[in-house]
Amino acid sequence: MITSKDNEKLKTVRKLQQKRWRDRLDLFAAEGEDLVEAAELAGWEPDTLLVAGVDVEGELLDEVSALGSGSRAIGVYRRRWSEPGGRLSVYLHGVGDPGNVGTVIRSAHALCDGPVVLGPDCADPYSPKAVRASMGSLFARPPAQAGFAELTGTRIALDAGAERTLSDVEPSGPVVLCIGAEREGLPPEVLSGADDVVRIALRPDGPESLNAGVAAAVALHDLANRMAADA
Amino acid sequence: MITSKDNEKLKTVRKLQQKRWRDRLDLFAAEGEDLVEAAELAGWEPDTLLVAGVDVEGELLDEVSALGSGSRAIGVYRRRWSEPGGRLSVYLHGVGDPGNVGTVIRSAHALCDGPVVLGPDCADPYSPKAVRASMGSLFARPPAQAGFAELTGTRIALDAGAERTLSDVEPSGPVVLCIGAEREGLPPEVLSGADDVVRIALRPDGPESLNAGVAAAVALHDLANRMAADA
Repeated sequence: MITSKDNEKLKTVRKLQQKRWRDRLDLFAAEGEDLVEAAELAGWEPDTLLVAGVDVEGELLDEVSALGSGSRAIGVYRRRWSEPGGRLSVYLHGVGDPGNVGTVIRSAHALCDGPVVLGPDCADPYSPKAVRASMGSLFARPPAQAGFAELTGTRIALDAGAERTLSDVEPSGPVVLCIGAEREGLPPEVLSGADDVVRIALRPDGPESLNAGVAAAVALHDLANRMAADA
Repeated sequence: MITSKDNEKLKTVRKLQQKRWRDRLDLFAAEGEDLVEAAELAGWEPDTLLVAGVDVEGELLDEVSALGSGSRAIGVYRRRWSEPGGRLSVYLHGVGDPGNVGTVIRSAHALCDGPVVLGPDCADPYSPKAVRASMGSLFARPPAQAGFAELTGTRIALDAGAERTLSDVEPSGPVVLCIGAEREGLPPEVLSGADDVVRIALRPDGPESLNAGVAAAVALHDLANRMAADA
């Protein structure tokens, strides 16, 4: 039982709150019994597993928590990356909010067979907030890393200013749904390189856009339903 | 120009981070120029408006920020509540995460004509995180407060364990989409009282559910599209 806050394992967990340490050690931490259980179900062997009252004093575990939620368990794992692919997948470009990145990883796991592909300037999917928001889907479906130019299949870009709407698309796989930052949207090279540029039909008297994590799920659900009907 | 942190207006903004003060004063604070602008566009007169460098020293405004985002403007407004109604609206029951409540207010503003109706045990829509997540839609479409028994129209409950899926519904207005907490779901009295209980079709190898804010938007988009096609 760890009883000192100077313990090396605790120090490592604390360091992993920072991206530079995650990059240097190629590890990340997942907080909470539900996430540790999800990792186990998906066959991930922890590098370190700290359970309050078993491996470590509860108060010491609280002190290294990045989420301040009084987790009863923290697991440390080696990072993994998938390859782009699948009949339906998502490409994120400049989505800097870790909660959104994690939420899209969860939604993609629920709605499509391909991974979330992270392009430039996205939040680190292995940051504490992203891991938490993914709710274990990160373990079942690790994200991929690739640029837009490396994507294959029909690339459908979401853009709030597009003339065509999602329902104008006749999806035939493989399809990659491309989503940008909430304010800036997708950069010109993605919009001009995409096979189709569409918007989600919103009320004219409402907001210009949906939250990026919400938009991804709405579009994936719509595309997945119609691709299933075609199959 | 306010130059003292003991200024009464600054003290009020700080107090409004707490629900008991929002209830007592019937006020709330919105942080950031975009939210203050959204309030103005929607015709809300601020009780107090504090702009950094104009009304108050920037550092003092930072100190009363609930979001720690270095806001350049904070507006204080009187709370407003809508009445339930509309051809399509949302009822939340036990959705305790303020980010989710705010996100649903934004999505409902984008996708349906009725308000978000808050039932028991929901996060305060006027808390700093909820106001931020609503991205100004709170001003255009203030939420309503009501119990399930007060709702009229076709009440469609989302439940991850339902046999029927969303696409089995033949929506005819007015429709109220009912959504519960992510883990607990909707309570028995709502499930038994609803006119239909359906799930969003998810992959069998994926997570059991979507984030509550995401699920609301996916279902609203689906229902709104089919109600528009019927109209």
